Amino acid sequence: MSKALVGIIMGSDSDLKVMQAAVDQLAFFNIPFEIDVVSAHRTPEKMFDYAKNAHKRGIKVIIAGAGGAAHLPGMVASLSPLPIIGVPVKSSNSIDGWDSVLSILQMPNGVPVATVALNAAKNAGILAAQIIGSSDNSILKKMEVFKEKMKQEVEKKSKNVQQKFNS
Amino acid sequence: MSKALVGIIMGSDSDLKVMQAAVDQLAFFNIPFEIDVVSAHRTPEKMFDYAKNAHKRGIKVIIAGAGGAAHLPGMVASLSPLPIIGVPVKSSNSIDGWDSVLSILQMPNGVPVATVALNAAKNAGILAAQIIGSSDNSILKKMEVFKEKMKQEVEKKSKNVQQKFNS
Amino acid sequence: MSKALVGIIMGSDSDLKVMQAAVDQLAFFNIPFEIDVVSAHRTPEKMFDYAKNAHKRGIKVIIAGAGGAAHLPGMVASLSPLPIIGVPVKSSNSIDGWDSVLSILQMPNGVPVATVALNAAKNAGILAAQIIGSSDNSILKKMEVFKEKMKQEVEKKSKNVQQKFNS
Amino acid sequence: MSKALVGIIMGSDSDLKVMQAAVDQLAFFNIPFEIDVVSAHRTPEKMFDYAKNAHKRGIKVIIAGAGGAAHLPGMVASLSPLPIIGVPVKSSNSIDGWDSVLSILQMPNGVPVATVALNAAKNAGILAAQIIGSSDNSILKKMEVFKEKMKQEVEKKSKNVQQKFNS
Amino acid sequence: MSKALVGIIMGSDSDLKVMQAAVDQLAFFNIPFEIDVVSAHRTPEKMFDYAKNAHKRGIKVIIAGAGGAAHLPGMVASLSPLPIIGVPVKSSNSIDGWDSVLSILQMPNGVPVATVALNAAKNAGILAAQIIGSSDNSILKKMEVFKEKMKQEVEKKSKNVQQKFNS
Amino acid sequence: MSKALVGIIMGSDSDLKVMQAAVDQLAFFNIPFEIDVVSAHRTPEKMFDYAKNAHKRGIKVIIAGAGGAAHLPGMVASLSPLPIIGVPVKSSNSIDGWDSVLSILQMPNGVPVATVALNAAKNAGILAAQIIGSSDNSILKKMEVFKEKMKQEVEKKSKNVQQKFNS
Amino acid sequence: MSKALVGIIMGSDSDLKVMQAAVDQLAFFNIPFEIDVVSAHRTPEKMFDYAKNAHKRGIKVIIAGAGGAAHLPGMVASLSPLPIIGVPVKSSNSIDGWDSVLSILQMPNGVPVATVALNAAKNAGILAAQIIGSSDNSILKKMEVFKEKMKQEVEKKSKNVQQKFNS
Amino acid sequence: MSKALVGIIMGSDSDLKVMQAAVDQLAFFNIPFEIDVVSAHRTPEKMFDYAKNAHKRGIKVIIAGAGGAAHLPGMVASLSPLPIIGVPVKSSNSIDGWDSVLSILQMPNGVPVATVALNAAKNAGILAAQIIGSSDNSILKKMEVFKEKMKQEVEKKSKNVQQKFNS
Repeated sequence: MSKALVGIIMGSDSDLKVMQAAVDQLAFFNIPFEIDVVSAHRTPEKMFDYAKNAHKRGIKVIIAGAGGAAHLPGMVASLSPLPIIGVPVKSSNSIDGWDSVLSILQMPNGVPVATVALNAAKNAGILAAQIIGSSDNSILKKMEVFKEKMKQEVEKKSKNVQQKFNS
Repeated sequence: MSKALVGIIMGSDSDLKVMQAAVDQLAFFNIPFEIDVVSAHRTPEKMFDYAKNAHKRGIKVIIAGAGGAAHLPGMVASLSPLPIIGVPVKSSNSIDGWDSVLSILQMPNGVPVATVALNAAKNAGILAAQIIGSSDNSILKKMEVFKEKMKQEVEKKSKNVQQKFNS
Repeated sequence: MSKALVGIIMGSDSDLKVMQAAVDQLAFFNIPFEIDVVSAHRTPEKMFDYAKNAHKRGIKVIIAGAGGAAHLPGMVASLSPLPIIGVPVKSSNSIDGWDSVLSILQMPNGVPVATVALNAAKNAGILAAQIIGSSDNSILKKMEVFKEKMKQEVEKKSKNVQQKFNS
Repeated sequence: MSKALVGIIMGSDSDLKVMQAAVDQLAFFNIPFEIDVVSAHRTPEKMFDYAKNAHKRGIKVIIAGAGGAAHLPGMVASLSPLPIIGVPVKSSNSIDGWDSVLSILQMPNGVPVATVALNAAKNAGILAAQIIGSSDNSILKKMEVFKEKMKQEVEKKSKNVQQKFNS
Repeated sequence: MSKALVGIIMGSDSDLKVMQAAVDQLAFFNIPFEIDVVSAHRTPEKMFDYAKNAHKRGIKVIIAGAGGAAHLPGMVASLSPLPIIGVPVKSSNSIDGWDSVLSILQMPNGVPVATVALNAAKNAGILAAQIIGSSDNSILKKMEVFKEKMKQEVEKKSKNVQQKFNS
Repeated sequence: MSKALVGIIMGSDSDLKVMQAAVDQLAFFNIPFEIDVVSAHRTPEKMFDYAKNAHKRGIKVIIAGAGGAAHLPGMVASLSPLPIIGVPVKSSNSIDGWDSVLSILQMPNGVPVATVALNAAKNAGILAAQIIGSSDNSILKKMEVFKEKMKQEVEKKSKNVQQKFNS
Repeated sequence: MSKALVGIIMGSDSDLKVMQAAVDQLAFFNIPFEIDVVSAHRTPEKMFDYAKNAHKRGIKVIIAGAGGAAHLPGMVASLSPLPIIGVPVKSSNSIDGWDSVLSILQMPNGVPVATVALNAAKNAGILAAQIIGSSDNSILKKMEVFKEKMKQEVEKKSKNVQQKFNS
Repeated sequence: MSKALVGIIMGSDSDLKVMQAAVDQLAFFNIPFEIDVVSAHRTPEKMFDYAKNAHKRGIKVIIAGAGGAAHLPGMVASLSPLPIIGVPVKSSNSIDGWDSVLSILQMPNGVPVATVALNAAKNAGILAAQIIGSSDNSILKKMEVFKEKMKQEVEKKSKNVQQKFNS
């Protein structure tokens, strides 16, 4: 694999079943990535190192997923100059996901986290590709193809539904 | 001004008092931008044109602010291959901002919006700079300076507080 | 089937299990309808065409169901002069349905969506019939019969319950 | 004034400051209406009479506004075969409007209320016009003019904003 | 059974699995009751009759259970001079019970409903007994016995837990 | 004043501006009452004494108002055999009143609190009168007069509104 | 077992499946504890005795778990001079845990409860150990070891994830 | 001032108007403290140093206040072996305080934060005193005096209210 452009981190390996969709989406766009378990609360020093150094080894975007009082995306954002994408994970100890969403979204002035929907690791992967695509025309083109493909899938469903009700 | 790299749009000119902070932040980073009022619900055709063509004239990131049932960021995301930053605005007709937040954040798979905190147009400006900075080292450097400056401001406040309580 | 008076659209074919109840209800009132999958986010052009032209081919009311950040009903309302009925769908990626409800209900001034309860496609079908019935006496009469039937069903349940506790 | 086509009722005269916008909007579309204070909880008999008889004297749509545990729209819907538009009012005793919204929106199967946004009496007026317009081409035409007017207002704001930032 | 002192009504027979606990509790206190299915939305006339006449045949308290946009307790309270106990039912179409709770609890000034916890039909039965007990010393005494019994049950659990951890 | 039948207590004298409405309502119905400040958290022993002895000196109903984590109504209910009416007060330290409402409403099985709407001390007074009225025909009659009076007030408002729009 | 330093109480033995984690955690730190079922609502006198006397027999911290309108932690805090840790339990009758959380967290000025996350009895045990450790160096040391152990567990997971994606 | 036992930190000096109450309360109990502005997001390195070293210079408890996506209390808890008290601050960018509360309260297993009510810095001060008092009898005694004082204040208010209504 070529040098990673996107770093995917998550607070616990139990988040992997949600975060896998980000992996798959980056693979689809053929964007090299790295992946690790980094916990803001259990491995704060590792989180510090990761956040302070990712851009030095060529990472362009970081995707961070976490649940409950989810501090990983925001803390990485406080330490890295890169755009950070936060994925609120509806973990087992979450109050219906509200804690995960608000802990990631409601960052103070000066330290943004690009938050996606609850459990929306797939969209995090697409957003990372869009960010890289904003300065890489080949990815931008793939994004247009991707959108076209979504369109065609809906059209197929549309035909199925119409057939069912009109035949 | 040189060719705009960031497009700032909002659903109504009443959102300008919130969105001004994005303008200021881009000016701070010296990133050229364009600004317009584009309403998903009142000028849907203009919104279509804007979203489909922004990347063709060199825009790299779009910041879209809207309140209530806020469809502007998501609809622009459905039509543009660019990364879209959504700013939920706590407009007068909003239910404490929850409608704005959820209408922008909870986008379906395939169509992400990079959502920032309620009314956090300043953070939208910083995030746009980070996205451009991910492929532009001079902006990346400015981002590190910006973070250093925030640090110093906190230190000044720290001194004031300590003086107040220890002298 | 005679010319459709009601258009039923939904963001994804996975919404069909909820939206089927609208179909059934219109069939009950013998009101001709059409049905399609139209996604605001994945097929925005098709959505545009649908919304701008439905009334030209005789559609009187549009029922639109969608989940999460549900933009379909509101965007169709922005483009069509017809009354639009919105059905918030509690989709798998929804935060307990709150996102679907608020994204559809909280439309800005000028662009109403007639919103029904979460997953209440049956009520959307009845409301469409009431709208057509407001200028069609035969439907109005059927509505009164429908209400009478509901009453009798409750009476039957009432008898069962009373029998259980008094015999 | 010609025979009323729309009935506007509200639970208390304190709701009038919100409901006035529905009046204004119907006047704009030149649709004759009647208006009254009808309380589900304080004048239940009057509410019964109103709901059971409105359609007999030519009313085509009823707009009902209420706050708190807002039962007026739903109770009228249970008694009338007409389409009922519910306006949740953020009254002084409301918990941020959530009670008004949920009491009106979450009607059981069989008895829909076409709910608009919190305090959105203006949208209730437009929706009533759309319902009448669905069988009255002159209103349908006015609706298209109305939408065009909204578009032009946004365009004017757009010009102001662009002028401010580009001159 | 002697003349009923408490009337138990519910919006649908599907509420019976919740409301049964009120029945059991009244039986425990040996208080005669009647039970019926009365729907505010599907049988509004029956609801009117029930509410206006219950006190005339000797009913002292009415327990009304309903879910979703639950109007039954409030409407009965608007028509009857008796104390009405409302039981919010977490029905299948409810948004986590919030709609049921707010529709029953947030009654306007002048028309109270004595609301108990979500699904707490057992507490509704006890409250009805307390209301009757406030003027009937034999019931008041039973209430003290009932409280004593609860205490003893907790004591038994306490012993079990202590045994488990200390032996 | 004759012997008090209703006890009104509140967690702090700052609740008096809300609770005054209960006082006024009981005065309206001519029901003798007593009033005191009793804090579950600051004067737990006094609360114990109050709750255990109120019924012994002839109190028939207790109205307890409190805000935030409002434990007063529930603790009194755990100690007294009387019906307890809880008034959730939207105090300054409350999260929009939700804490007050849920702390009072969601009592466990066995220990009901008859909860009224947020700040609805007036309704607490009416409910207390209804409870006493359930065994006192003269109060029951006054309740019917009270309802009639409310009806007439609405009718007066109805006339004002109709005059405004029809003259 | 030596003299108990921590008292663990819960409103019902059904809370034990949640509260067991506090027991396990104290055992891990080798801190002697006592455990009992004490219900604020069903055994108020026992609760009074427990809260007033715990510190007299050497208890240093009390952990109290309860669900729904959870008054146990707050009432114990009102009666004891000790630090009280509250564990909101998501019991079966709870509205998604919000009632438990708010009833315990939102205590009035003067009477704090140290609240942990919903169902987080494990964290209550750790917090109790930290409180004892604040004046007992051996426990403080164990706390540092415990944190080190958590770190190592995350590192192991990190290796597994990296292996999975890089081999 | 003698060596500080409690460290009070806050994310911004704008939190001081809330956090002052913690200062006042510690002064009341005569417990020496230190105070500083430490931002998790703007001065992450300082936060690291503070959290890792506080216990080494004799601090026994840390009180940390923060608003919005409030990561300060949780991050300090991840790095310090001491008990951490979190004060959710309702800052200007907060969504009614919910984000502050959930970001602090809902910490994952292994890393507790002793959370107090929204803006309840006074209670944080009392809780810190209770923690120190759990191993310092003179503070424990002061706590009992403090509770007695609260009781007397309520008694004074009680007299005032009774005088007002009985004279």
